[in-house]
Parts: sequence; structure tokens; C-alpha cells
Amino acid sequence: MDADVIVVGGGVIGTAIAWRAARDGLAVTLIDPGGDDPRAGDKASLVAAGMLGPVSESVFGEQDLLNLNLHAIDRFPGFNRELEEAAGKSTGLRTEGTLAVAYDSGDLAALDRLTDFRRSIGLKAERLDARECRKLEPFLAPGTRGGVLATGDLSVDNRRYLAALRVAAAASGVRTLAGTVTAVNGGQVLVTPPGGLAARGTTLAASRVVVAAGHATRALDGVPAQVRTAIRPVKGQILRLRHPAGIPHLLTHTVRAIVQGHDLYFVPRADGELVVGATQEERDDRDVTAGAVHDLLRDATTAVPAVSELILAEASAGLRPGTSDNGPILGPVHDGSLIIAAGHFRNGILLSAVTADAVLALLRGRETHDAWAPFGPGRFQKAATT
Amino acid sequence: MDADVIVVGGGVIGTAIAWRAARDGLAVTLIDPGGDDPRAGDKASLVAAGMLGPVSESVFGEQDLLNLNLHAIDRFPGFNRELEEAAGKSTGLRTEGTLAVAYDSGDLAALDRLTDFRRSIGLKAERLDARECRKLEPFLAPGTRGGVLATGDLSVDNRRYLAALRVAAAASGVRTLAGTVTAVNGGQVLVTPPGGLAARGTTLAASRVVVAAGHATRALDGVPAQVRTAIRPVKGQILRLRHPAGIPHLLTHTVRAIVQGHDLYFVPRADGELVVGATQEERDDRDVTAGAVHDLLRDATTAVPAVSELILAEASAGLRPGTSDNGPILGPVHDGSLIIAAGHFRNGILLSAVTADAVLALLRGRETHDAWAPFGPGRFQKAATT
Repeated sequence: MDADVIVVGGGVIGTAIAWRAARDGLAVTLIDPGGDDPRAGDKASLVAAGMLGPVSESVFGEQDLLNLNLHAIDRFPGFNRELEEAAGKSTGLRTEGTLAVAYDSGDLAALDRLTDFRRSIGLKAERLDARECRKLEPFLAPGTRGGVLATGDLSVDNRRYLAALRVAAAASGVRTLAGTVTAVNGGQVLVTPPGGLAARGTTLAASRVVVAAGHATRALDGVPAQVRTAIRPVKGQILRLRHPAGIPHLLTHTVRAIVQGHDLYFVPRADGELVVGATQEERDDRDVTAGAVHDLLRDATTAVPAVSELILAEASAGLRPGTSDNGPILGPVHDGSLIIAAGHFRNGILLSAVTADAVLALLRGRETHDAWAPFGPGRFQKAATT
Repeated sequence: MDADVIVVGGGVIGTAIAWRAARDGLAVTLIDPGGDDPRAGDKASLVAAGMLGPVSESVFGEQDLLNLNLHAIDRFPGFNRELEEAAGKSTGLRTEGTLAVAYDSGDLAALDRLTDFRRSIGLKAERLDARECRKLEPFLAPGTRGGVLATGDLSVDNRRYLAALRVAAAASGVRTLAGTVTAVNGGQVLVTPPGGLAARGTTLAASRVVVAAGHATRALDGVPAQVRTAIRPVKGQILRLRHPAGIPHLLTHTVRAIVQGHDLYFVPRADGELVVGATQEERDDRDVTAGAVHDLLRDATTAVPAVSELILAEASAGLRPGTSDNGPILGPVHDGSLIIAAGHFRNGILLSAVTADAVLALLRGRETHDAWAPFGPGRFQKAATT
């Protein structure tokens, strides 16, 4: 045995699991293509914005996912507090909330429905007129018609969050290996070290293996076919802007808007970063394209014109691990030696804390939270009989 | 004496001078903040597109600069051939020419004037209708009204060109030092090594010092005040796009267009790079801004819609060394121990070959080409009496 638990994948899901398992006394090995460097590899965690809201267009009406997200947003601040203590560094959590703004009467009506819905499930939502919106966020374009302030929503700096998870994991004794896992079989994993085809794979063994490989779970031999085929990459392109000297921070809330039919968001950081996203493309390349950057900048400068003065620090693309029903996949497969924790789509950071809790429960033979019940890997069985 | 000649600045101007002087038997030391690495530092040479045409809006009517540019375009291919031989590598010279396209009748009239003007000075210019333009470049937007093909214009890959100059210089015995020159005095230069304020400066001595520091010439103690004040930084932002697998090269000619009043150019490379530029801003920062990238992408996708499919590989900003009369500054100052070769503005790569010829002539006590006569450093004397 090389460890009690091998975790495949070092994004926020895998690292959160590894940390909590090691903190609970298990010997954990984490394997990721980027090894010790949380910034290396093609992790969707790095391309994210870190917006943490339980309700968005994608879950409006998906009751099971909403329940899970509500469970996750309740849990996140406590988990994050423990993380910051364990890592000795900040994750950049912001609590100002999300301001969703509308530019026409159709958008306004949608915001009214959102407000009613949030209130019906016990979340805060405050309807604001145009003047109130611009009082909260003076750099919003003059055409803003009104908005909704969701004070319970959070945001976190996704890169600081992942870096903190890595520090906390290492401090709890997690051993991190650089390599690509190509197959899992019972408690064994086949690892190809970095640098290529010439190098021979190594086999590592543990009592339990947790697959948290995001969209790459699709390519992993030994994962049940119905799980692999349920996962699809959804490309997202995102911009990281920075404020040059002399320009005040343009936004303090997470701001969401629909601009020319595109769903746009801004996530501001205390350090002056402003994340703008994101495209959703059914593609599996990670190219940053001229067209996507153009559209994001066009929509962003339409909603907040002063954005044109900001520095374009980075444009990046990642592959979200989408699934055929948009919900994550969590639970044991085969004889229970293999646990799947993948398919978190747009909610990976929000769900990371409760995913780590749930996987630790599975590893320790305890029950997972009820909200996880609809998201077992077995739900794709029927679809896979063809 | 540390050398016969010290050259201050390792962009295309300084490196071309260093190479030709060393090749002629002089002991040459080249000093640049980036040291041996031609990609390091804030060189305008790296942000350029490498478009080589003697006639553009900026010189249309400036007869002296036009004469110099005509001298330069005649000289460039021979110089480049020697460079490729000496360096053993290609500079990516392209000879297909420049296609200037028009989108409205005002633009068309301007192109007619340009055609007449080019022919009047013996340059080639072929008026094309819309169909002929799109036959040459099928990815041009349908709204193209017509154009002019300038078959004598060239382009070179500015980064390969600079890299080749560095290799040729080193092969000829040029010694390259990393450091920032802060003062020149007679044949002496004061050099601050990289890494900062704590390090003490070193003084190096040579028979002659050549200042080819671009916009930074402005900050150099010992350069005559009237030369320093004549130089101004003109910020330019530029995009480097790449063709993803499966997308054919969109353009084969350098393409120029006026889009919504902005002068836009595309310079294609044989390796699949497509450079799009450029802003002209009277600023001295090197921030890549959201607004400039947006505008370049908007104009580029207007002129060549399929550009939206390309990869945005890089957005960068540089400071062109502009001067108060838009012409370069070349000639000896003080007792002749100091030679200025700066202020090449938008024409640095085009003028690099003839600048190296002229500086070598000065170093050897020979006459420079007549075309240089209007560009001596003494021309700013009167303006400096205040």
C-alpha cells in the first residue's frame, strides 16, 4: 500500500478532499499533472471567477441542484475559515453580495421573477431602481434600468483558494505527485510521470481511490463507461483585468448582467483584479480566441464603460466538467474501492467544501448529506444500456 | 579602453550598428537592460509588426522622410540577405506586397491619391476593384470597395529579425552586457547592472559611444538637452494572433484598411502568426488596456470577419521613439565621441539597415548617404534656446 487514499486530480475538488482526509488522519497521496504547483496544468479551477451564489439561470428550476447549492453556500464560510487558519493565508472571500442589473423591460421582468424565487426559498433579495443601482455601483452604464441585490451571495479568489487548499493539504501530510493517471482498477492507479511517452508508467496502490479529475475523468480507464460518457467539456473563456495606478476600483459587488443576450459577470477582488466572464462553448480545446475576447470586452464595456481604461492582464480558457444533467457526480462505484467526485460544471468552487465533507463521510463509512442523494454515479445506468 | 565602440541599446537599431561595426573590424560592446536575451526589456522592436513600406499616411508629404525611406527600402533586401547568411537563420522576409483596401468612397479617393503619388515617385501601385481585392484575399469582408496593391512593399518578422541581428553580432565578436546606461560623457558610459539600486554603477570607456536607446534616450544624462526634449514616447498596442489547426491562413499580403476612422494593418507570417496593429497613444506607460484590445479586435473582425476564429496569442504594448518632427536623429554630437542614432518612431526596422551603414560611415570617417542630411541632431538647436 502506498497510501490509504489516492486522490486523482489536484483542482479545488481533489485538493479539498485530500486536505480533509489527511486532516482526519488518513494517509493521502494526491496526483496531478502539475505536481506541487497549483498554477500548473489545465485545471478549470484556475480559469474560474470564484462567484459563489446558489441561484443562477442554470439552476433556476433544477430543484435538486438548488438544494445542493443551498447546502454548499451554508457550509462554505465555515470551511473557508478553517482553510484560512490551516493555510495561514487569505482566500479573498468577499461578502458584499451580487448585484444583478437589467437593461430593458424583459430583463427587469426576469429579475422580478428571480427576486420572488429567492425570497420563496428564504434567500435575501432586494429590488433596486436604477438610481439605487448606480448609487451602489457608480460606474454602471447610464442605461441600467434596475437590479436585484442578493446580499447572501459570496465570492472567493479561485486561485488563492486553490493555493490555500494546497498549503493546508501539505501541512496535513498530503503527499503530492506529478503525473497523469491513465487508469484506475480497484485500489490501483497507473501513473505516467511528466515528460512523456518514453517514460514507463508506475502503479500505485491504496485502499480507496477518489477520482476528482474534472473533464479528464472522461478519459480515465476503469471509470464506469456510463460515468465517462455523462461528462462533457464545456469551454469557458474569461478575462482578468487590473486597475492601473490612479484608477479607483470600479466595482465592489459581484455584478451580473445580460448584454445583447449574453450572460455576463464581473467579480471584483480587493487586490484590484476584476474578473470578467464567461463564454460557454461546447468545445474541448483551450484556445483563447479573438472572437470570444472581443465579445467579452464589448459586453463588459457596454455594462461598465470605464472598463476600457483597465489593464487586460490575462485572457484564459478552461474546460468545465459538464454532465448530461448539469449535476455533479458523487459516490462509490464497483466494489466501493473507487469513489467518483467529478462533473461539478460551473459550481466547482461553491461545491468543493461539501464535496470534501461527503467524500470523507464515504471514506469513513458515514452517511452523506441528504442533498447528495440525487447525484450518485448510478443515475446514468439506464442511459448506458445502448 | 573597454572597446573601440560602445553601443547603448540592443533593439534593432543598436544591434544592427553593433553587428556592422564589429564585422568591419571594430571591438564593440553592446549594453542593454535585457543582456543577451533579445526578447527581454521594453524594446519597441519587439512590439512592432515589421511592415516595410516607404509610403504611409505619416510620410505622405514629408519629402525628407520619404527620401530616407526610399533609400531604406532599396537597401533592406541586400542587408537582410547578408544578415540571414551571417546568422544562419531566416528573418521571415515576405515580398507579396501590401494591399490597402477601402470601405467607402472617401477611402477610395484617398487610395487614388496614394496610387498617383506612388507612381509619381517610381513605386509600383496597382488599382484593384472589389472583386480583384477579394480574389487576392478571399477573407476580406464583403463591404470592401476596392484597393491598391503595392508590390514593392516588404515585411519581416520583427522578432526573428532582431534575434538574427543578435546572433550575427555575437558571431562577429560583439560583447553584450546586461545593464542600464544612465549617463554618457565623452567616450565613457555609466552602467547600472540589472538588479537594482543597491548595486553600484560601473564606468566603461571607448573611443566612441553610440546611443541607440530609442525612447529611453530621453532619460540619458550627457545627451544634449535639445535631443532629449525632441524625443517623445508614442505608445502602441498590438495583437499577435495565430491560426488554430484546421483554419487556413487568412491573409497572404500585408493588408491596410481604415476602419471607422482607425488606421489598421494586418501583417501575416509564413508560420501562421498574424499581427494586427496598432494604436498610437501619446502616453508613456506600457499597459495593455481593455479598450485598445477591444478596438483592435472590433476593427480587425470588421475588416476580416474570420479573424474571430483565430487564437489571441498575445497583446502587447511598446513605446515608439517619436520625435518632434517625426524624423529620426542621426549624427555626432559634442566633440564627435558621441553619436546619436535614435527617434526612429514607426520606421525603426525599415531604417535599421541604412542606420547601421550611416553609423559605420561616421565611425570610419566617411560620408553618410545624402538622404541622412536633414536628420542631424543639430536641427533641434534653435528650439532649445528657451
